[in-house]
Amino acid sequence: MDISSGRSAFAVFHSDEAARLGMQREDRVALHFDGTRVDAIADYSDREVSRGEIGLFREVWQQKHIRDGEIIEVEFIHRPPSVEAIKKKLLGKPLTYNELYSIVSDIVKGRLGDIETTYFVATGFSQPWSIKELCWLAQAMADTGEKVKLAGTVIDIHSIGGMPGNRTTMLTAPIAACLGLTIPKTSSRAITSPSGVADTMECLAKVDLDISDIKKIAEKVGATLVWGGSLNMAPADDHIIRMSYPLAMEPYSKMVVSIMAKKAAMGIKYFVIEMPVGPTAKVHSQDTARQLERRFRAVGEHFGMKVKVVKLREVEPCGHGVGPALEARDVMRVLQRKDNRSHTLERTALRLVAYAAHLTGKYSFRRALKLARAALENGEAWRKMQEIIKAQGPNMKPSIDAEEIISSKVLTHDIKAAKRGYVTAVNNYAITDIARNLGAPVYKQAGLYLHKRYRDKVHHGEVLFTLFAESEERMDLALHALKKVSVFEIS
Amino acid sequence: MDISSGRSAFAVFHSDEAARLGMQREDRVALHFDGTRVDAIADYSDREVSRGEIGLFREVWQQKHIRDGEIIEVEFIHRPPSVEAIKKKLLGKPLTYNELYSIVSDIVKGRLGDIETTYFVATGFSQPWSIKELCWLAQAMADTGEKVKLAGTVIDIHSIGGMPGNRTTMLTAPIAACLGLTIPKTSSRAITSPSGVADTMECLAKVDLDISDIKKIAEKVGATLVWGGSLNMAPADDHIIRMSYPLAMEPYSKMVVSIMAKKAAMGIKYFVIEMPVGPTAKVHSQDTARQLERRFRAVGEHFGMKVKVVKLREVEPCGHGVGPALEARDVMRVLQRKDNRSHTLERTALRLVAYAAHLTGKYSFRRALKLARAALENGEAWRKMQEIIKAQGPNMKPSIDAEEIISSKVLTHDIKAAKRGYVTAVNNYAITDIARNLGAPVYKQAGLYLHKRYRDKVHHGEVLFTLFAESEERMDLALHALKKVSVFEIS
Repeated sequence: MDISSGRSAFAVFHSDEAARLGMQREDRVALHFDGTRVDAIADYSDREVSRGEIGLFREVWQQKHIRDGEIIEVEFIHRPPSVEAIKKKLLGKPLTYNELYSIVSDIVKGRLGDIETTYFVATGFSQPWSIKELCWLAQAMADTGEKVKLAGTVIDIHSIGGMPGNRTTMLTAPIAACLGLTIPKTSSRAITSPSGVADTMECLAKVDLDISDIKKIAEKVGATLVWGGSLNMAPADDHIIRMSYPLAMEPYSKMVVSIMAKKAAMGIKYFVIEMPVGPTAKVHSQDTARQLERRFRAVGEHFGMKVKVVKLREVEPCGHGVGPALEARDVMRVLQRKDNRSHTLERTALRLVAYAAHLTGKYSFRRALKLARAALENGEAWRKMQEIIKAQGPNMKPSIDAEEIISSKVLTHDIKAAKRGYVTAVNNYAITDIARNLGAPVYKQAGLYLHKRYRDKVHHGEVLFTLFAESEERMDLALHALKKVSVFEIS
Repeated sequence: MDISSGRSAFAVFHSDEAARLGMQREDRVALHFDGTRVDAIADYSDREVSRGEIGLFREVWQQKHIRDGEIIEVEFIHRPPSVEAIKKKLLGKPLTYNELYSIVSDIVKGRLGDIETTYFVATGFSQPWSIKELCWLAQAMADTGEKVKLAGTVIDIHSIGGMPGNRTTMLTAPIAACLGLTIPKTSSRAITSPSGVADTMECLAKVDLDISDIKKIAEKVGATLVWGGSLNMAPADDHIIRMSYPLAMEPYSKMVVSIMAKKAAMGIKYFVIEMPVGPTAKVHSQDTARQLERRFRAVGEHFGMKVKVVKLREVEPCGHGVGPALEARDVMRVLQRKDNRSHTLERTALRLVAYAAHLTGKYSFRRALKLARAALENGEAWRKMQEIIKAQGPNMKPSIDAEEIISSKVLTHDIKAAKRGYVTAVNNYAITDIARNLGAPVYKQAGLYLHKRYRDKVHHGEVLFTLFAESEERMDLALHALKKVSVFEIS
């Protein structure tokens, strides 16, 4: 069959034959032909194959050459031992490193079916995981993917996210590099947010680099700002995320493990985690934040990694722009010392770099903060950003002026205050919704520019925010959506 | 698309478009066209549909007529509230009847995806369920399917199974009917066992009846022996079983709920549960058995149903035959008072009927046992079985002699003892494996006849068991399998 599952090797039997054989979902079969053997997960259909035929997914016939019409001997085989390990955990028993490794490795190799993988993910919600298990799971995830070894003082500054328009990362990377630190930063693309760091950086430079390029750039320039999605580092994570998406909920333990596994694989030695805490952030309470911090630090210790968690109370986007190009402009305004730059964005980025530099033991926090600010003020950070853009491959002129990032052809629409008062709440869900209706992250220029912040005074008729779209249709969609939700609460 | 999921309405988008829309697995969409709306679960593919097209499963276009090429407006909609309820339970919080009903109802209507349903099943393993929740879940399962209301003293005698070749049910039903009880018995077909009660009964009569026929026969004859699979009673159970199969493990709570839901839907008032307890049975310890008993009784109380759990220590099949026709012969030998009948089978069946009759309050246990034995001895039970066969539609002459059930054309092969000693263990897994290799339950005549029982004395060269097959190939397969496993341990 010219079908690929993208993952597991499937062998499809006719439904009647499957019933006759007592075959069930995710049963395992060994296919013997011509002296060789390929293992597959059994499936059935009354449409894709006829009786007496076995349909093979690309994952099967790409492993071993097999001719159309070849006679295949089918043997039922046991489910892999990892299924037993999943059952064990589901019943509340702790797992060993070897058991966790078998699960993670089978997920990566496509040897576990979706249902089995889901049961494993379910244990993350419902069963307690000891610190030891979290360490082993992170270790197993790192061990089943690619690893990088970098020279220098290798750090990472990571936001656990959950807030639209937070682009400190694009500032912390060049600033940290100016302080002599190595920061091989990989970021994600947006899934449900208006823009991931990788989407925003892509306005300026290529982000789809391979591991050897990342290593080369990080060692030469001191920093990268690339997409981490195609790197095959801790690859089990992607499969686990697929299964947790339908609940739109990520167990905290799983979050710790997946972040730490990727950082361990990247050889990070000093790791600062920015953790927004607030009613619309991923972490709602200080209590949860403290529990998470303990787990991050403990798993860090397992890998010989120093970890600092920076809890930030956040109620709104950090910066004015939401959407790839608008966020890139925010970043460039700070680097280029523009008067209209976001001071919150600048302040947060400087503090994060200072925490990381302090963590390495080379600087006091105060001195690190001073050096970081100097790097920004004397233009060094801005030059470093141009180096990064050049090294990754520019998508715009590396020295582009911040104000030129937004095209003159983009459509804009101002939304004005219907009454006077104060901004008493910022609806981050609405911001995301409107930005996506405008076309972000696919249309790079699309998004919102927020003129007002939480607690600001607002006059009647004053512009609250501006919509940016690349087409009338998209603008209409957003205006339509704005009839149902509001971005600011004014009272 | 000429595809059916057999369950949920799926709308398939091109992968690129799905990515652009930020669409994820099991996202929900509302499809608007021509003034109507159909809700569907989103999926994507780079093969089945082109860009700009939406592929619709049969479940979609059978709901509302839709033309090829029609313009469809797609709206993302929220996941159903049942997903929130599943999340709640996964995090360890108890659910209300309304929440449980929403989950069960959405499973039945195909509104929950496989991953979501799996998370729900996972809570059965890993979260405590209160008795109240078990009652409500069973209630919700009964309430979302067909229900039957029967006149008379409606009883059921049910084995929780797990042992090959246990056919007390085909004896208890006619005997109980002789005592004036109404027993609308529905049974399953084999999934992984050599024969379900429905497969065995099918040697003698049709078992694929609809609810109105079952009602008519139960009220007229007093008993049915039919297949319960197509009746749409507590239909959520089938979907839940599909998801628990990959682990080959059923949570005990789930077992209680699914059994009780079906009995409640059938309007059972007095319910005897035969529970084999032993190392190779579903229930391994007396402790677990007692816990299960408590739950069965509590859920029974919720439905106003009297429940008696009969714990039997079982180490081997109850009867000599394993496989549809061989088991039917065992049953008929008891009904026809043959000398070669199985006394264990007879004794067990009589006791179960006596427990049920006693439970109704109409008889003492001793009197019920006496009446049951009399019904068997005076031929009344045998005549009742013929009535049942006639009412359901005979597949063999209703008065057929037990010895004629096995065809003279069947191939047999005796397996003899290689040494003398005692039977110190019976391997039930091996019995199942061999019987299925011989072709049971598809080939009705296939199976094993066990000449020896646990603790029997065995002489060197004595026949231990006989294999029955309909073809040389099947016999060879079984003999091949017997090289790896042995049915009896002799020492």
